Amino acid sequence: MRDIALFGGSAHPELSAEISEHLGVPLHPVRVQRFANDCLEVQLQANCRERDVYLIQPLVQPVQENLVELLLMIDAARGASARRITVVLPHYAYARSDKKDAPRISIGGRLVADLMVAAGADRVLTMTLHSPQVHGFFSVPVDHLHALRELAGHFRNLDLSNTTVVSPDLGNAKEAARFARLLGVPVAAGAKQRFADDRVAISSVIGDVDDRDIIVLDDEIAKGSTVIELLARLREHNVRSVRVACTHGLFAAGALKRIGDQSEVVEIVCTNTVPIHERSEKLTVLSIAPALAEAVRRIHNGESVSALFDAP
Amino acid sequence: MRDIALFGGSAHPELSAEISEHLGVPLHPVRVQRFANDCLEVQLQANCRERDVYLIQPLVQPVQENLVELLLMIDAARGASARRITVVLPHYAYARSDKKDAPRISIGGRLVADLMVAAGADRVLTMTLHSPQVHGFFSVPVDHLHALRELAGHFRNLDLSNTTVVSPDLGNAKEAARFARLLGVPVAAGAKQRFADDRVAISSVIGDVDDRDIIVLDDEIAKGSTVIELLARLREHNVRSVRVACTHGLFAAGALKRIGDQSEVVEIVCTNTVPIHERSEKLTVLSIAPALAEAVRRIHNGESVSALFDAP
Amino acid sequence: MRDIALFGGSAHPELSAEISEHLGVPLHPVRVQRFANDCLEVQLQANCRERDVYLIQPLVQPVQENLVELLLMIDAARGASARRITVVLPHYAYARSDKKDAPRISIGGRLVADLMVAAGADRVLTMTLHSPQVHGFFSVPVDHLHALRELAGHFRNLDLSNTTVVSPDLGNAKEAARFARLLGVPVAAGAKQRFADDRVAISSVIGDVDDRDIIVLDDEIAKGSTVIELLARLREHNVRSVRVACTHGLFAAGALKRIGDQSEVVEIVCTNTVPIHERSEKLTVLSIAPALAEAVRRIHNGESVSALFDAP
Amino acid sequence: MRDIALFGGSAHPELSAEISEHLGVPLHPVRVQRFANDCLEVQLQANCRERDVYLIQPLVQPVQENLVELLLMIDAARGASARRITVVLPHYAYARSDKKDAPRISIGGRLVADLMVAAGADRVLTMTLHSPQVHGFFSVPVDHLHALRELAGHFRNLDLSNTTVVSPDLGNAKEAARFARLLGVPVAAGAKQRFADDRVAISSVIGDVDDRDIIVLDDEIAKGSTVIELLARLREHNVRSVRVACTHGLFAAGALKRIGDQSEVVEIVCTNTVPIHERSEKLTVLSIAPALAEAVRRIHNGESVSALFDAP
Amino acid sequence: MRDIALFGGSAHPELSAEISEHLGVPLHPVRVQRFANDCLEVQLQANCRERDVYLIQPLVQPVQENLVELLLMIDAARGASARRITVVLPHYAYARSDKKDAPRISIGGRLVADLMVAAGADRVLTMTLHSPQVHGFFSVPVDHLHALRELAGHFRNLDLSNTTVVSPDLGNAKEAARFARLLGVPVAAGAKQRFADDRVAISSVIGDVDDRDIIVLDDEIAKGSTVIELLARLREHNVRSVRVACTHGLFAAGALKRIGDQSEVVEIVCTNTVPIHERSEKLTVLSIAPALAEAVRRIHNGESVSALFDAP
Amino acid sequence: MRDIALFGGSAHPELSAEISEHLGVPLHPVRVQRFANDCLEVQLQANCRERDVYLIQPLVQPVQENLVELLLMIDAARGASARRITVVLPHYAYARSDKKDAPRISIGGRLVADLMVAAGADRVLTMTLHSPQVHGFFSVPVDHLHALRELAGHFRNLDLSNTTVVSPDLGNAKEAARFARLLGVPVAAGAKQRFADDRVAISSVIGDVDDRDIIVLDDEIAKGSTVIELLARLREHNVRSVRVACTHGLFAAGALKRIGDQSEVVEIVCTNTVPIHERSEKLTVLSIAPALAEAVRRIHNGESVSALFDAP
Repeated sequence: MRDIALFGGSAHPELSAEISEHLGVPLHPVRVQRFANDCLEVQLQANCRERDVYLIQPLVQPVQENLVELLLMIDAARGASARRITVVLPHYAYARSDKKDAPRISIGGRLVADLMVAAGADRVLTMTLHSPQVHGFFSVPVDHLHALRELAGHFRNLDLSNTTVVSPDLGNAKEAARFARLLGVPVAAGAKQRFADDRVAISSVIGDVDDRDIIVLDDEIAKGSTVIELLARLREHNVRSVRVACTHGLFAAGALKRIGDQSEVVEIVCTNTVPIHERSEKLTVLSIAPALAEAVRRIHNGESVSALFDAP
Repeated sequence: MRDIALFGGSAHPELSAEISEHLGVPLHPVRVQRFANDCLEVQLQANCRERDVYLIQPLVQPVQENLVELLLMIDAARGASARRITVVLPHYAYARSDKKDAPRISIGGRLVADLMVAAGADRVLTMTLHSPQVHGFFSVPVDHLHALRELAGHFRNLDLSNTTVVSPDLGNAKEAARFARLLGVPVAAGAKQRFADDRVAISSVIGDVDDRDIIVLDDEIAKGSTVIELLARLREHNVRSVRVACTHGLFAAGALKRIGDQSEVVEIVCTNTVPIHERSEKLTVLSIAPALAEAVRRIHNGESVSALFDAP
Repeated sequence: MRDIALFGGSAHPELSAEISEHLGVPLHPVRVQRFANDCLEVQLQANCRERDVYLIQPLVQPVQENLVELLLMIDAARGASARRITVVLPHYAYARSDKKDAPRISIGGRLVADLMVAAGADRVLTMTLHSPQVHGFFSVPVDHLHALRELAGHFRNLDLSNTTVVSPDLGNAKEAARFARLLGVPVAAGAKQRFADDRVAISSVIGDVDDRDIIVLDDEIAKGSTVIELLARLREHNVRSVRVACTHGLFAAGALKRIGDQSEVVEIVCTNTVPIHERSEKLTVLSIAPALAEAVRRIHNGESVSALFDAP
Repeated sequence: MRDIALFGGSAHPELSAEISEHLGVPLHPVRVQRFANDCLEVQLQANCRERDVYLIQPLVQPVQENLVELLLMIDAARGASARRITVVLPHYAYARSDKKDAPRISIGGRLVADLMVAAGADRVLTMTLHSPQVHGFFSVPVDHLHALRELAGHFRNLDLSNTTVVSPDLGNAKEAARFARLLGVPVAAGAKQRFADDRVAISSVIGDVDDRDIIVLDDEIAKGSTVIELLARLREHNVRSVRVACTHGLFAAGALKRIGDQSEVVEIVCTNTVPIHERSEKLTVLSIAPALAEAVRRIHNGESVSALFDAP
Repeated sequence: MRDIALFGGSAHPELSAEISEHLGVPLHPVRVQRFANDCLEVQLQANCRERDVYLIQPLVQPVQENLVELLLMIDAARGASARRITVVLPHYAYARSDKKDAPRISIGGRLVADLMVAAGADRVLTMTLHSPQVHGFFSVPVDHLHALRELAGHFRNLDLSNTTVVSPDLGNAKEAARFARLLGVPVAAGAKQRFADDRVAISSVIGDVDDRDIIVLDDEIAKGSTVIELLARLREHNVRSVRVACTHGLFAAGALKRIGDQSEVVEIVCTNTVPIHERSEKLTVLSIAPALAEAVRRIHNGESVSALFDAP
Repeated sequence: MRDIALFGGSAHPELSAEISEHLGVPLHPVRVQRFANDCLEVQLQANCRERDVYLIQPLVQPVQENLVELLLMIDAARGASARRITVVLPHYAYARSDKKDAPRISIGGRLVADLMVAAGADRVLTMTLHSPQVHGFFSVPVDHLHALRELAGHFRNLDLSNTTVVSPDLGNAKEAARFARLLGVPVAAGAKQRFADDRVAISSVIGDVDDRDIIVLDDEIAKGSTVIELLARLREHNVRSVRVACTHGLFAAGALKRIGDQSEVVEIVCTNTVPIHERSEKLTVLSIAPALAEAVRRIHNGESVSALFDAP
């Protein structure tokens, strides 16, 4: 197959640039024009014909703008005779809409997957989906990377002898257990009762956390209400310290400051799957650009991507 | 088929309510929830099962928000076992992206049509598409109404003995000619050279406009630059008066005031296919709700829609 | 829409008959012929033309035989001009294959959903999917019932003052929590480390179970290894009694006897989504035929199915 | 990708041969057999397996025969395991059926595009579509060339100081304006009122044409009635000379002679997108085979096609 | 479902009228316009909205014209919001192209089936397909009638005591055997070696035909070469008389006269699935309009069509 | 295209190994796991990314198990980003279900073809389909090999001067005639009246077989009832010897012994398209592995496959 053609949308130009640098492949510009009637038009600024095209666009705020821009980019690449179109989706926000827990609601995770395929996507490269089943929403091949490797690499430098990994939610507990195994430490979980999207109450923590150093692991932190509630519960257990880790650091509504203001929190760790607009002394941002660049390289060369992510 | 279930999205609740009233069918609420990660979830608040569902949503600013909301509404209706889903699209903004006049650009008009079908739309009811060919972008049946009937009804009350209809653009001239025939008056057109989306220059007016009362007819007025330029040209021809008419009165960037400030402009007429946020003494807004309601009624009853729009 | 035409495949004739009886609609025979080359041919033995066809077939052992038979039934109904084809799938066994947790494996839950649609299924009625995300694997409308209502009805007759609901697995803990809320009792969960499909080790129970009456809730019991391991852990906590409940009582490899032989187990409760071939004094089988019949009736009549399952 | 395999159908063997020659790639024979029941069968007479197949067939009279033959050629290439199938459609006659201007009519331009894709076409190379929106009728990539470059090259040899380009129809006026800009001359247009397919009346010419040398530009000339009517109007303006230019010289019903017989017409220019069966002293036929051959070469090699058509 | 809307194309207006009469449902006109560029446009001249539309068009000479006209009719009905579109295809000529007996040939029987579905056909009603497998080429429901019932009804009036049914070809022998059983007589068959479409040689007749009264049964007679060759072989066996019967009497290239001129041929019997342009004293044409009308009635009413065709 | 990746399912490991050996390409293992709920999961044990994947699986007993396993293999290959997936289907058992000879039955031959495409198959390589029309059931390219070449090669070593090829059934007679021509001998056929799947009665043999050496040719022998009946008829004609040949030797229900026990049968010849579990002194098994390996090689290299099978 002919060369890679790499394009990045408006959502996260820094990540696109970083992937380009790690890959050693130029990042081509995308012209996004907004008409007076608020419609977008996209022009890919380099030849796509018979190229192996990669379009980088995490679905971050403004999600709808970034999604439609991405769909237009896919359409433009298809119309420009791309050989193959891979959507690089470091954060698939709509993955949270993965079930029908009320009548007559949309299942956005499946719908948006179908929209990308309808626009012409041939495959998807994504990271830490909210639930692993979302993989099955796509009718095209998906390479689903996890940032656990990067996060574990970061924490391995610490003394973990008194550490427990805590999932804020039973739903995410399996992932936390996997992470705990990577670090060789025990796992616990909050039993969360959800009342609404942004108001939650942690009824209890199941598992032993008294006097422990805690690593809270979640896939994504948005408003951070769940983490804040969990911290309150953990405090009742006299935990010694807390580090908060996640793949997708969305940090909406002052979440970063609210979590950082908790005295027992010594560090907040996330990756750059989404652009981080706020800063905090406690915040550490790990780059997943090398992992995505290596995945792109392997996809292009037909090498195994799963091999890359074997346990280190 | 069982009863109509009528829903309106966030884009234009006034129009939805008006259609509901003319139709004598209740407008059901749509709950649109925005999550902390900026994703939307839609819940249709009434039973859709085996119903003939109509979803009203013009694609107006913010277009991407309204589009994704509409796609989620379609998805929710499909998942809720709607018998048939008709998208009522009083203004299809993406119709302007109807050709590929530069390499590697998206053709949004076709893409968005495909997205609606991918989401589950069974048919579309729309109004005054930017070009009639956009009808063919849809792989589902389209009922394409024109507001010429409503506009002509308004102008017939005037003395038209000295009147000429002018299209600002050769591309829209056929529609203007049809309108002129409805009014029994001659037609002229501006020969526009387009430099960019919002900067245009009218090189000349072809056709006889000297000392005439002018009705400028366009399908849509957004920033209004074309109309402003045309007015300058018409002024050189000593036109007696100008009335500006269009179906879709988007009036972006102060267009309404800019056009209204021209002294020769005695009236600006548009319809309510899109919500009108600005007001002006010179502005007359005609309602197309009766026409849309009647079309919905006929679609539901299996009566001819084309018969409705025979020349009056 | 014309009358219901109800057919049951080979997988579970008793349930088909029971649904037919509750619905008051005759069950039509299906002729399944096996040729000398082991291929199947299906003939639906009643007119399907313009009928609202329901095909009842849980995917139980022999799963592949029952699946292909179901696909042939769908094909026959489509070829016979059925107006609408609803697959009634009381147990969707392939729902367990819902993610890609190893490279180059099949995702059977999505594939089989696609196969049913490719064969001509217009909609699906199913019960207690292994994970709620599997709903999103279907590109056609799904009515997803839960047996929690039937199970809760059964246990409400007991004194629940000292009772705790325990999920054998963190993954299923949300469902157990919902069940516990229905009963007004607390919840706990086993933290299971899975080594292979049939060998598991429960490392610990998180939550308070000492001296409690326990209701173990799982979606499905197949070989029962998880439950057996959980019982060993619960014994260490001196639980007073154990009742084991699930929707899908597959009871493979002597599971029923193995669980029933545990002295602290006083009752095993399941539903008849799958045929129960073994018997045990401790076993109670609840019928979900009334719920499925009512759902079929509502689907046919265009009434809300979700309304049926509001919390009692 | 492996070699080009070039096939030409029955519609225009001379053009196929010429493209083959310019491309330096052999033209393989196509056996078209007509059975006693008037059905066609097509056999491609060279190996297509893994080849980059190009099928040349303008839709010219007999259109239906040539269309079905083309669809059978596509089907044969697909069944023969072609790697990619590009339909080379120098004249897409059905592009004129691009809108629904009467109730219950077919939109042939969209339908035939869908038929080609249903038969297996992967992409299309076409020339001077009747309207640019027809591009959007195709769900596969389209390379849309214009013959303006070839036509402009021809006229640049003349003294154009007193020349005006005239479009016979407002609908085609934008294309005429683009052509006029290429030549550096002004533009005018006929305001045509269409009564039926072959009877039209030009009500007036808008724009200044008195005493000018005229180049009439249309996309296609079939019966030529529009041009004849325009010539009558131009005569009233005392034009000095007229040259008639078009891409597709169909010249049905004696059009060539009728136009050539007008004394003010000094030249008729068209290209060979369609076979020219009549001859006239005034007729100049320009070959677009070099342009099509170069486009095929670039498509095959993955080079930019748009780059080829930058303004000279 | 709402009323039947019945339309007939250009191929066989007499049959359309006859079906309309038997059905007691008016036949609506179809306007077929041929443009100067030889393209067709179809307008259905009655409201199709929510109607159960039936489009009657056998694929007879000129097959390509009639096929494209049919596809445009389907497209027009779909665009006009037909509730369901049934193609009534009394003769599916392309069914003969049902296999790939040479490399790189088209399989017209499958392709044309796909084209009709791509255009919007929901179901097909057809008669005496060349091979029963062609049924499986359609991805939509097919009602496949046989004219054996009508043909057998005709021959039952004769003294059949000395009669043998002969198939000209081993490939059609199964159908001939079925027909022979209907008449209660023995069967024989020609062993044909085919050299080309219109030149065949019958090597021998297998089965006992000496001194018998013969009914030759074929699905279709086009040029009649096979029948003529068979008659020569039968003459060598001193057959007493020959009656030639077929469903589709295409009679190309003087076939009717050539067969009728054979002295032993006492009668030629066919049905009116195709228009019969020639006449002969020996020719009897049976009408299948009652059968098609009854099938349309049953399809519309949701009654069993297969029941209609039980052995009489 | 990158390298071949060759996988064989559970159905016929010996043939997979033999094809691998002839091709000089390693056969990669396929892990098939059966869960406690009887569902299958497939893991392809080698990198498929951008590979040209071939999946070998004849549909033999247990057909449903092997079919679902094959569909899961296809799904796994697609999900693992195979470049192209070719299903190697040496025996397509469902091809026998190729028509609708009773109301409301499935057409398994078309359905299973659609299922393979729905799962992700890009092309099919198969052998001796029950009827050539089944080729047209596939919407993807099919390479259809015949074993006549191998069978003829075997018989050419014999003295064929007194030999006649006999087809047990008129339906297969064309294939037998083709085989007879390959051997230069005459052909005859049984006129079979079929009562049910496993009970048939041959009414007569048409053609001259008295005192001849007979080669009975069928595509497949399952229970062998047809052949046994034919042998009885042939005995009445005092045939000298009988050799029974077929491509697919299924030999169900003791067929091999029953046929071998007939004294006039001197040899039974089949190929290894299916695994042969029984043995008999009279049985000769020819390998079609070289032919399949050569076809795979040519498909991979883009060489003509039809050229391979020209008459020797």
